[in-house]
Amino acid sequence: MNNLVAILLAAGDSGRLWPIDEKLFINFQGSSLIEHSLNQLIRIGIKNFYLVGNSKNAVLCRKLQDIYPRVNIKVAVQKNNLGMAGAVISVKKEIMNHQILVVGPSDVYEDYLLTEFAGLYRQKPDGIMVGKKLDYYAPLGYLQTDNDIVKGIIENPPRDKIKTNLAAIVFDYFRNSKILVEAIEKSTSKKDDLYEVAKDRLIREGLVVKLLSYNGYWGYLKYPWHVLDISSYFLSRIKSKINKVRIDKTVKIEGQVCLEDDVTILENVKIVGPVYIGRGTLIGQNCLIRESMVGRNCIIGFASEIARSYLSSNSWFHRNYIGDSVILENCVFGSGAVTANYRLDSLNINSAIVGKKIDSGRTKLGAIVGRNCRIGVNTSIMPGIKIGSNSFIGSGIVVDRDLPDNKYLEYKDGHLNIVDNRIKINHHHLEDNRLKLKF
Amino acid sequence: MNNLVAILLAAGDSGRLWPIDEKLFINFQGSSLIEHSLNQLIRIGIKNFYLVGNSKNAVLCRKLQDIYPRVNIKVAVQKNNLGMAGAVISVKKEIMNHQILVVGPSDVYEDYLLTEFAGLYRQKPDGIMVGKKLDYYAPLGYLQTDNDIVKGIIENPPRDKIKTNLAAIVFDYFRNSKILVEAIEKSTSKKDDLYEVAKDRLIREGLVVKLLSYNGYWGYLKYPWHVLDISSYFLSRIKSKINKVRIDKTVKIEGQVCLEDDVTILENVKIVGPVYIGRGTLIGQNCLIRESMVGRNCIIGFASEIARSYLSSNSWFHRNYIGDSVILENCVFGSGAVTANYRLDSLNINSAIVGKKIDSGRTKLGAIVGRNCRIGVNTSIMPGIKIGSNSFIGSGIVVDRDLPDNKYLEYKDGHLNIVDNRIKINHHHLEDNRLKLKF
Amino acid sequence: MNNLVAILLAAGDSGRLWPIDEKLFINFQGSSLIEHSLNQLIRIGIKNFYLVGNSKNAVLCRKLQDIYPRVNIKVAVQKNNLGMAGAVISVKKEIMNHQILVVGPSDVYEDYLLTEFAGLYRQKPDGIMVGKKLDYYAPLGYLQTDNDIVKGIIENPPRDKIKTNLAAIVFDYFRNSKILVEAIEKSTSKKDDLYEVAKDRLIREGLVVKLLSYNGYWGYLKYPWHVLDISSYFLSRIKSKINKVRIDKTVKIEGQVCLEDDVTILENVKIVGPVYIGRGTLIGQNCLIRESMVGRNCIIGFASEIARSYLSSNSWFHRNYIGDSVILENCVFGSGAVTANYRLDSLNINSAIVGKKIDSGRTKLGAIVGRNCRIGVNTSIMPGIKIGSNSFIGSGIVVDRDLPDNKYLEYKDGHLNIVDNRIKINHHHLEDNRLKLKF
Repeated sequence: MNNLVAILLAAGDSGRLWPIDEKLFINFQGSSLIEHSLNQLIRIGIKNFYLVGNSKNAVLCRKLQDIYPRVNIKVAVQKNNLGMAGAVISVKKEIMNHQILVVGPSDVYEDYLLTEFAGLYRQKPDGIMVGKKLDYYAPLGYLQTDNDIVKGIIENPPRDKIKTNLAAIVFDYFRNSKILVEAIEKSTSKKDDLYEVAKDRLIREGLVVKLLSYNGYWGYLKYPWHVLDISSYFLSRIKSKINKVRIDKTVKIEGQVCLEDDVTILENVKIVGPVYIGRGTLIGQNCLIRESMVGRNCIIGFASEIARSYLSSNSWFHRNYIGDSVILENCVFGSGAVTANYRLDSLNINSAIVGKKIDSGRTKLGAIVGRNCRIGVNTSIMPGIKIGSNSFIGSGIVVDRDLPDNKYLEYKDGHLNIVDNRIKINHHHLEDNRLKLKF
Repeated sequence: MNNLVAILLAAGDSGRLWPIDEKLFINFQGSSLIEHSLNQLIRIGIKNFYLVGNSKNAVLCRKLQDIYPRVNIKVAVQKNNLGMAGAVISVKKEIMNHQILVVGPSDVYEDYLLTEFAGLYRQKPDGIMVGKKLDYYAPLGYLQTDNDIVKGIIENPPRDKIKTNLAAIVFDYFRNSKILVEAIEKSTSKKDDLYEVAKDRLIREGLVVKLLSYNGYWGYLKYPWHVLDISSYFLSRIKSKINKVRIDKTVKIEGQVCLEDDVTILENVKIVGPVYIGRGTLIGQNCLIRESMVGRNCIIGFASEIARSYLSSNSWFHRNYIGDSVILENCVFGSGAVTANYRLDSLNINSAIVGKKIDSGRTKLGAIVGRNCRIGVNTSIMPGIKIGSNSFIGSGIVVDRDLPDNKYLEYKDGHLNIVDNRIKINHHHLEDNRLKLKF
Repeated sequence: MNNLVAILLAAGDSGRLWPIDEKLFINFQGSSLIEHSLNQLIRIGIKNFYLVGNSKNAVLCRKLQDIYPRVNIKVAVQKNNLGMAGAVISVKKEIMNHQILVVGPSDVYEDYLLTEFAGLYRQKPDGIMVGKKLDYYAPLGYLQTDNDIVKGIIENPPRDKIKTNLAAIVFDYFRNSKILVEAIEKSTSKKDDLYEVAKDRLIREGLVVKLLSYNGYWGYLKYPWHVLDISSYFLSRIKSKINKVRIDKTVKIEGQVCLEDDVTILENVKIVGPVYIGRGTLIGQNCLIRESMVGRNCIIGFASEIARSYLSSNSWFHRNYIGDSVILENCVFGSGAVTANYRLDSLNINSAIVGKKIDSGRTKLGAIVGRNCRIGVNTSIMPGIKIGSNSFIGSGIVVDRDLPDNKYLEYKDGHLNIVDNRIKINHHHLEDNRLKLKF
């Protein structure tokens, strides 16, 4: 695959994921999503990568070369706003005369998709597209096919007009990059689907594109709670690893539990796998951790319960219940703060996405909390609520609506107020290992 | 006792017990109160029963025949509103020419009362009445006696005019049902005491009624917290039974603890007897269960504490403190919800009964919660508060007054609102055993 | 030291310590501060004491003679308002012709200060004063010295004019009491520093006062959180003692832990020393006690956590988090009540002292709670808040300002109200051991 360049679409960051940003750099099991993607691509022999990022994440993208010294990772910054098509255009000169593989690196799929791609690639087709068999409806692009040949792409068909269950995963191979670039440049679309329109045009103009029919796991990040789905997928494949850790003899571990080095688990803790706990994290006495992914250097304090949640790094919990929740890095929850994760009426939990109420499809969903947040003691966060990064919430509050980034929600004179949060967070307590037990 | 018919007064249901209704069908140790009563009566050889129910509980009453195939249980629906006297009248044709034993089947007494009754019965007296020696004052009917012969009944004497401490338990035998029926039909009373007036008339007209003087436990349901008293009585007689259960080796059990089949108890739980736990109930990690009766298929989730309480079936707790409380079936308590069970001033706890403040006589009393209730996270229910069936309470609320049936108490725009609760509860999570651990 | 009289200044009680009063009688490790002081003085051979108290604590002071039958402890009541100078004047006749040692008995210092004093005393100097080397600035009196001779005292120098780091501890020896009395009577000062002015005058007039330079621990009570500092000091010197106690085999103890007789510790408790627990105290299941001092006959109920706190006697906790807090005797905390001990912004915690906001110098500080307080369930007390004695707080409240003595803070009709608390506390439950487990 020496002549193949993988173009990793790293520029898009969706407001629908708020308060999550930089989705490619969300960590699962110690590696970011883009690293998981690179690992899979490198494993089948790809050596050349173009990461098309944006002005915010280009720095992070450029650091990836250090992690992968044996392959070539170049970074371009996409300046147009033409979506995936624009990403390809951004590097059109650099990929000239190359085969290209366009990949959405926040998507998650099983290794065997890559193996099957490599097999199909050896047959030297003009193009390859991946269709994922769905057993539910979702507003996606769908492949029209005839005997393993892709015949067209229909974008967002209405539910009653859908004729195929093969959702188009962005994992597109073209033996000749030029014809894709030309198709994009010839296409016009006012909607966000220029890339799909160009691909459809190519196919309808006669390019023979092989279908790679895929029936395995496909994870993608459209809404923030999808972090929980992807976390569950990674957890489902985890293997137990318990060494270089300090675990009290009263700790009980069930199922597959992967503990990175320097994890400490104190008395009477129960871990119900699958669970992943990142390096340096401390689990205090009497905690219960179930089916969760916990990042590095967290402190899960006395009598906390973490269930089916994704916790990023450097966060600090104390006598909390965190259920079905996503908590980004550097957060602190006061004693008795709770994420409610179930509606009184048992119905699906809604969440406001870019101002619109969306059914999460889940009866269990807690909170989505951004980076650097602080939650007061005995505060209750209602199901599906999202807290923006750098926002603080006072004590004893019932949080029943989303809080934007950089705000401070306080109870004052009988009313809830939202004011700007100008407080600079002091991280020393989290960084200093000697202070770790001082919560 | 082939010619004796026991008339079980099953028609009365008191508003004073709200939110408890169908008091005869409250379960203690897996059997309803009326079953406990039937068991005692059958054990001394009674084979024929008339249950005089009402239109609401007749269906439940009729099912009892299936449970007791070896005796005859007939059900009549009382249509008049003449109280106990009316119940007897309802079945007057059916009991003609029979000896009758009129029993209040929600009363609880010790087996030896039955044994002593059987002995006295063999002496073939015209009648037998039971007098319970009280060492406290209560507004009840009192027997006047002379050498083991009952000489009259005084209903609700004022405290300073009481001349006897023999409270009349409704456990009345008449060798000839006809004379009781006639006495009732001759008596008139505008108050609720027609039955007692008729009995008093019979005695004063010369019927020789033997006194059965009883000094054992007598439990009755006048106010809802009396469920706790009866529960304590049953618990006081419990014998340990721990088999066909799944108990972690770290669980510690003290005192008499009866665990029905398929009970599961997870790590680091302490059970302080006397405790009864019904079939299929799960006790999660780090719970403490003390001197309580827990029904079937409950989930007592992580780090909950249940103390001196009565929990019915199919309820779901999670990080709660439930103290001195009665929780009927199908309730769900969110994480951190607490029943306060002690006044700040240590005084007796009052509770509103049919609009009137009543001293419960208890310094420790939590909540009385009806069926199908849901309580939000971090909500606090004040001592002696009652929650009607099918009512929901939001999160972080301090509940300091009773909530009627079918209401939803929510905190909205800075105020507590009570609105109608039209939500249909979805029980699937409780019914599906596989989901049991998903709280 | 037969001719030496120690004058213990027991009259001053500072409003800055509120809600703590009678600071000399705060117990640490089973002995009050004044007993700790007497113990040290007696150990070097002093046999005669004058306690100059006030009208409120004279009764308590007089009881000390019973505890120390082998020395002479006399009590005078200071009636003037001349501070320390007035205390000396109050007993001027009684100390005539004696050597005197004027001691602030709420100060805490290491035994070796006494040993060094005894050594210097044997050299028969005219006077001895103690200078404590400080490595931080504090508004205190400072000694000016020249080669171990005290040359003057400067009271409260501004930070930039301070020329010495030798703070004057009130531990002043005079071979001739008369000259001190005369110096006081000659001095005039409108400020609170008459005693220091008189001492300075004596020195400047030529009295040769030896400096006792001291570099050890010096604890004093200026602000209420200083109780935590003194508690930490006593804890730092504690030696493990675990006998005549009842401890479940699952209890885990780390570090130096002193358990007085009749302490009971139930299942799955973790004690992280240094910890002191007073006689008769019960630690319930699943508690975590860290670096704390707990008085006598407390009940630390199920799943509570006590961290770096000072708890006096006869208090009752239940599922609480008490962190960096001072709780005086006879308090009751309802289930789920929490002392927040950390600001969301990680800054130093302020506290209002006599109406003025004072920086406590601590990033971790919980509540200071007076005697006989009751805190409702799920109530949250903010960092640095002080609750006056005999005050009650309802349930589910966020307490964000100090509550005076004898008040009741309740949530009523949507507002927080403060009313007078006229409730007489009924202590029977705390006194009756049989009821101990009934929380």
